[in-house]
Amino acid sequence: MALYPVIMAGGSGTRFWPLSRQARPKQFLPLASKQPLITDTAARLKGLAPVKNTFIVCGPLHAKNAAKLVKGLPKQNLLVEPVARNTAPAIALAALQVAARDPKGVLVVLPSDHHVADVAGFQRTLSDAARIAEAGHIVTLGITPRHPETGYGYIQVGAPLEGGGRAVKAFKEKPDLETARAYVSSGEYAWNGGIFVFRADVILEAFAKHMPQMQKGLDALAKAVGKRTFGAVLKRVFPKLPSISIDYGVMEKASNIAVLPGDFGWSDVGSFAAIPEVRPADEKGNVISGASAVVVDCQGCVVLADKRPLAVVGLTDVVVVDSGDAVLVVPKDKSQDVRKVVEALKARKMTRYL
Amino acid sequence: MALYPVIMAGGSGTRFWPLSRQARPKQFLPLASKQPLITDTAARLKGLAPVKNTFIVCGPLHAKNAAKLVKGLPKQNLLVEPVARNTAPAIALAALQVAARDPKGVLVVLPSDHHVADVAGFQRTLSDAARIAEAGHIVTLGITPRHPETGYGYIQVGAPLEGGGRAVKAFKEKPDLETARAYVSSGEYAWNGGIFVFRADVILEAFAKHMPQMQKGLDALAKAVGKRTFGAVLKRVFPKLPSISIDYGVMEKASNIAVLPGDFGWSDVGSFAAIPEVRPADEKGNVISGASAVVVDCQGCVVLADKRPLAVVGLTDVVVVDSGDAVLVVPKDKSQDVRKVVEALKARKMTRYL
Repeated sequence: MALYPVIMAGGSGTRFWPLSRQARPKQFLPLASKQPLITDTAARLKGLAPVKNTFIVCGPLHAKNAAKLVKGLPKQNLLVEPVARNTAPAIALAALQVAARDPKGVLVVLPSDHHVADVAGFQRTLSDAARIAEAGHIVTLGITPRHPETGYGYIQVGAPLEGGGRAVKAFKEKPDLETARAYVSSGEYAWNGGIFVFRADVILEAFAKHMPQMQKGLDALAKAVGKRTFGAVLKRVFPKLPSISIDYGVMEKASNIAVLPGDFGWSDVGSFAAIPEVRPADEKGNVISGASAVVVDCQGCVVLADKRPLAVVGLTDVVVVDSGDAVLVVPKDKSQDVRKVVEALKARKMTRYL
Repeated sequence: MALYPVIMAGGSGTRFWPLSRQARPKQFLPLASKQPLITDTAARLKGLAPVKNTFIVCGPLHAKNAAKLVKGLPKQNLLVEPVARNTAPAIALAALQVAARDPKGVLVVLPSDHHVADVAGFQRTLSDAARIAEAGHIVTLGITPRHPETGYGYIQVGAPLEGGGRAVKAFKEKPDLETARAYVSSGEYAWNGGIFVFRADVILEAFAKHMPQMQKGLDALAKAVGKRTFGAVLKRVFPKLPSISIDYGVMEKASNIAVLPGDFGWSDVGSFAAIPEVRPADEKGNVISGASAVVVDCQGCVVLADKRPLAVVGLTDVVVVDSGDAVLVVPKDKSQDVRKVVEALKARKMTRYL
C-alpha cells in the first residue's frame, strides 16, 4: 500500500497579520519552528511517504513559494487551483492525480498550516488510519481534546468498527464555551483536525454519489490528467466546481466514515494566542523570538521581534509582533480581532500592508 | 526693566525612549505640539522678551540642535556647559552674561522641556514675578496643584509679602502619595515647577553668600565675559564648580525668597503617561499621533506611530511608541520603567539605540 500525502495549502487569512500577507499566508510563516509551517508539515511525513508521492494543492499566488518550501517536490505534484473552491474540489483534484497513478493509492490529506508535537505518534496514527482506509473507509482523525476549545469543530465518536476505527455519531460545528466544556467532559468527542485518509477510488466514488454536481467537471479533468491539455481543462472546469468543504460535501453524508482517535500534540495554530502551544516559553510563560526583543517584567506574553529593538515592559498576556514594516499589539484573548486591523487598512487603501 | 529668559536645556534622560536618545533628549521632541518642547518654550515668551535677550544653557552634544530649534537666537546667547553641573552653576553662567550687559536685568529661568497650556496666564504670572524680582526678591513660581502628583517637589506657601508674592515656609521633596494628598487638600502647597525669576545682581549676590565655593570660579568667568578667552576660561573653571541644584544651593537658604502662585496649565511632561495632559485625546481618551496608527477598541492609550502601520487593538491605558528604529509597549502606570529597557540595551551593548 502506497501513501500519497496531499498538503492543502490554499488557505489565506488575516489572523497572523502583520506577519501574514496576501502573498505570504500563515502556512509560509515560521510560527512553530525556524521553518515555515508547510515545510514542517512535509518534513513530518518523512519515513511515511516519499516526497515524490506528495502533492500540494494551492492557489496561483502561492505556488512558487510552496514549491520552494517543500524540497524535492516533483513539479507535476504541485496542483494549482485557478480559483479557490474550498476543500472538496481541491481534494478531488488530488484524488484524480493519484487515481491515474495508483487507483487504490491511499491519500493522506493534511492542512499545511498545523503543528504536531509528537511526530512519531502522528505517524503511527496515520499508518493505522491508512490500514482502515485500505479496507474502504473514509477515515478522519479525531484528536483527543485537551481543553474546551471553541475554535475547532468536534466529532462525536461512536462504537468501534470492525477492522479498526470508530463510527462517527455526528460532526459538530464550532461550539460555544458551555457546549465545548460538555463535549470535553463527556469523553465522547474529539477535535476535527481536518486530517483525512482514504483511497483515491473510494473518495472519487463518494464524490460521484454525494456531490454529483461535480461529476461532469471531474470526468473532464480525469480524461486530461497527464496530458498537455490538463492546465487548460483545469482553468475551464475548476471555476465551475461548487465551493464546498469535504466535511459538508462528503463526511457528513457518506456511510463508510470512520474516525480514528489520536493524541499527538496537535494544534491548528489558530492565532498568535496559540503560539505558546507550539513554541517553548520562558519561566514566566513568555514566548520571545528575535535577539532584539527586550521583555521586562512581563508574563504570558508573545513577543516576536524583527531586527530593531522591540521593548515590552510590565504587560501580561499581550501579543506584540514586529514584521519589519508593521507592528501589532493586542491582548492574547483578543488576537482574533487582528482582522479588524486588516479591515481598517483596506478601508484606508493601505494595500501594500495587506 | 528688561527680561532675560534663560532656557535650561541641559537635561538628558531616558523616560521617552525610544523617541529620546542621548543626542536627542526630551526637550528636542515634539511631545506637546508639532514642534519640539524647546521651540514651544521659546515661542511662549513672545511679547515678553525679545529673542536677542534669550539665553540657552545646554551641553556640547545638544548645542547645535538647540541653536537650530530656537530661531533667531544670537550665537553668543548659547551657553554651552563643558560638563553638566546641575542648575546652580548653569544659572550662574547665565547670570554673569546678563550682568555684563545689564546688572539689574531680570532673569526668567525656564526648563526647556515643560508644557504650558495657558500662555497668556503664564506671561501674566511671569510679568508679576518680574516686578517682585525687580524689588530684590528671588522669585519662584508655585503652581496650583491639580492632583496629588508624587513626581513633583512642593512649596509650602506662607504669608503674603509686601510688594507681592508670598513667603516660602518650606521646600518639600517629592512626596509619597499619602503626603501628596495631604498637601493638595490642605490648599497650602504649590508644585515647584523649576521656574525662577530674579535680578542678575541679586542671584550673583546670593551665590556669593550661600555658595561661596563657587566664587573663585565665578570671578574668573566674570572677568572673561565678552572676551575671546571666555571659552577657554569656561573649560578650565566650569568642571570645578560644584554639581548642586539652585533649589538646594540657594532657594532653601536665602531669606529674600518669594513664591508667586500661578495656574496656567503647566505640566512637566514627565513621561509618556503625561502625554494626555498636553495633547488632545479622542472620545475614548486615546492620544494618537501619526497617520499610520491603527487603533481599534482601545481606551486611554497613547499611540505614537512612525511611517509604518502601528496597530493597537483592545487595550486600555497602554503606551505604544514607534520611533522608526525601535518600538516600546508599556502600561501607562509603568511608563517610568522605560529606564529598564535602556539599561537592558546598555547591558547588551546595543549603543546605537541609546
